[in-house]
Amino acid sequence: MPGFRESDLLRSIAERSRDLAQQHHAIEVGPGDDCAVVRVEGSVLLTVDQLVVGRHVDESASVEQIARKAIARSVSDIAAMGGRPTWALATGLLPAGYQHADALFDAMSRWARSWRCPLVGGDIASGPGPLALTVTVAGVPHAVRGPVLRSQARVGDGVYVTGSIGNSFDSGWHIAFEPRIDEGDWLCEALGDRLGAMIDLSDGLGRDAGRVAEASGVAIEIDGALVPLRAGARDALAAAGEGEDHELLFTARGEVPDRCPATGTPVTRIGSVAEGSGCMLLVDGARMDARELGFDH
Amino acid sequence: MPGFRESDLLRSIAERSRDLAQQHHAIEVGPGDDCAVVRVEGSVLLTVDQLVVGRHVDESASVEQIARKAIARSVSDIAAMGGRPTWALATGLLPAGYQHADALFDAMSRWARSWRCPLVGGDIASGPGPLALTVTVAGVPHAVRGPVLRSQARVGDGVYVTGSIGNSFDSGWHIAFEPRIDEGDWLCEALGDRLGAMIDLSDGLGRDAGRVAEASGVAIEIDGALVPLRAGARDALAAAGEGEDHELLFTARGEVPDRCPATGTPVTRIGSVAEGSGCMLLVDGARMDARELGFDH
Repeated sequence: MPGFRESDLLRSIAERSRDLAQQHHAIEVGPGDDCAVVRVEGSVLLTVDQLVVGRHVDESASVEQIARKAIARSVSDIAAMGGRPTWALATGLLPAGYQHADALFDAMSRWARSWRCPLVGGDIASGPGPLALTVTVAGVPHAVRGPVLRSQARVGDGVYVTGSIGNSFDSGWHIAFEPRIDEGDWLCEALGDRLGAMIDLSDGLGRDAGRVAEASGVAIEIDGALVPLRAGARDALAAAGEGEDHELLFTARGEVPDRCPATGTPVTRIGSVAEGSGCMLLVDGARMDARELGFDH
Repeated sequence: MPGFRESDLLRSIAERSRDLAQQHHAIEVGPGDDCAVVRVEGSVLLTVDQLVVGRHVDESASVEQIARKAIARSVSDIAAMGGRPTWALATGLLPAGYQHADALFDAMSRWARSWRCPLVGGDIASGPGPLALTVTVAGVPHAVRGPVLRSQARVGDGVYVTGSIGNSFDSGWHIAFEPRIDEGDWLCEALGDRLGAMIDLSDGLGRDAGRVAEASGVAIEIDGALVPLRAGARDALAAAGEGEDHELLFTARGEVPDRCPATGTPVTRIGSVAEGSGCMLLVDGARMDARELGFDH
């Protein structure tokens, strides 16, 4: 037998969540049955991400860090649609003999609640591989602006990022980043229809900006000199290829405030949307195809 | 590099699903953005399950069988709430160098559509372990009966199962079972509030009936002589402990038809609900605690 009994662990998870249906009027049945039951009216945002230890986090990461990052990655996708997370489901594929299953699910449960998307269901299995988690998160889009898609960039929009870019791994940002929920919501509220496309920067600025360009049928030009670098990032070229920034890249028309009032997160214009296709990065007078920078699994 | 590029594979999955938003009025944005967007009014059923090759299916299983079982396991949980599946998300954790990623996601996509829960999102990663899939499925409960919970068994109810029990592994049923969607819906329709509790038989008749008893605060007594055995099952005792039947166990008051008219699936009374606690199995005059039979991971 491995270091846990699935039935005991599931019971402990269900008991921890017993108050969910009381606390959240949208949750009719929490964990512990064949399905959870939630009440929804309108559009729902849905995303799922995996976190594999040894690949997305170091073997040396703590249970708390692993749990936090697993939830945060999916929450960050909800933020990139301008939405707010509402509930989540999580699975754990545990190495044989894994001793921290209860602590891991307890930590995922706490982090999910901290971002207001309590775990309503999950599954546990064991296998010969490394610890691997999946987190499905749902959310509600901004009531007025609606879901902010990658395909909504328009020629003439400015291109912006929240926070700073690069050196995510060595700085530890990739494991401690704060999903930009408040910032995404504020952009919807403050800019309304002037907000164009938006994306979560996970695979590198160049590659992800290229995805916006492709989905929108436009070209994006980024001026490397304008890219706000995280402390320790070498230069814009390196930063644009590194990935796991988990900042928002968005396009917008007209005035854009340079800071989110609620959180203080800076917003920086780094380029513009033009006719054509592809994503060009200008660095030291050279233009390069930014789509080939960045992270591909 | 492994045998796939994540960006190419995700693009191929998104392209395969490009018509989803046209075909399903409830799907506003399909795969390819940070999130999918679906439209919902009312209660949503939610479940997630994992399928690990070498654990839940043999290494020798085909890509088609693996994909089918991964989707079917979660669909079966929706059926056990009396619901109909509506959409799904799937992740794949692929062994390094895995060559069948595109075929696997194509097959999952087809099977999901066949049970009317098209894949609206997913994620792909690679790792050193075995192939592992997770499938999140959502559904709608029966419009009149509502979600059928494990906690709704009442003293005096009969205890019933669909289909037959046991020998799921050797017979291949565990990989080719048909989720009892139509049967669950029919039970809601035909029995209404006379339908009590319901559960998907995945971990063994004894263990799962014990879960219904515990959730409902009642005792369940099963007469082994009444348990309908799958061909090749040794006896009720063995069958009750084997698992992966993926039949519906339910409790009900009054008359219960002995067959689902739409599918022909038989329905068999195997016991009754009494005051007390626990689940007893009567075999050859002996009474035993059925909860300790069956599958615990």
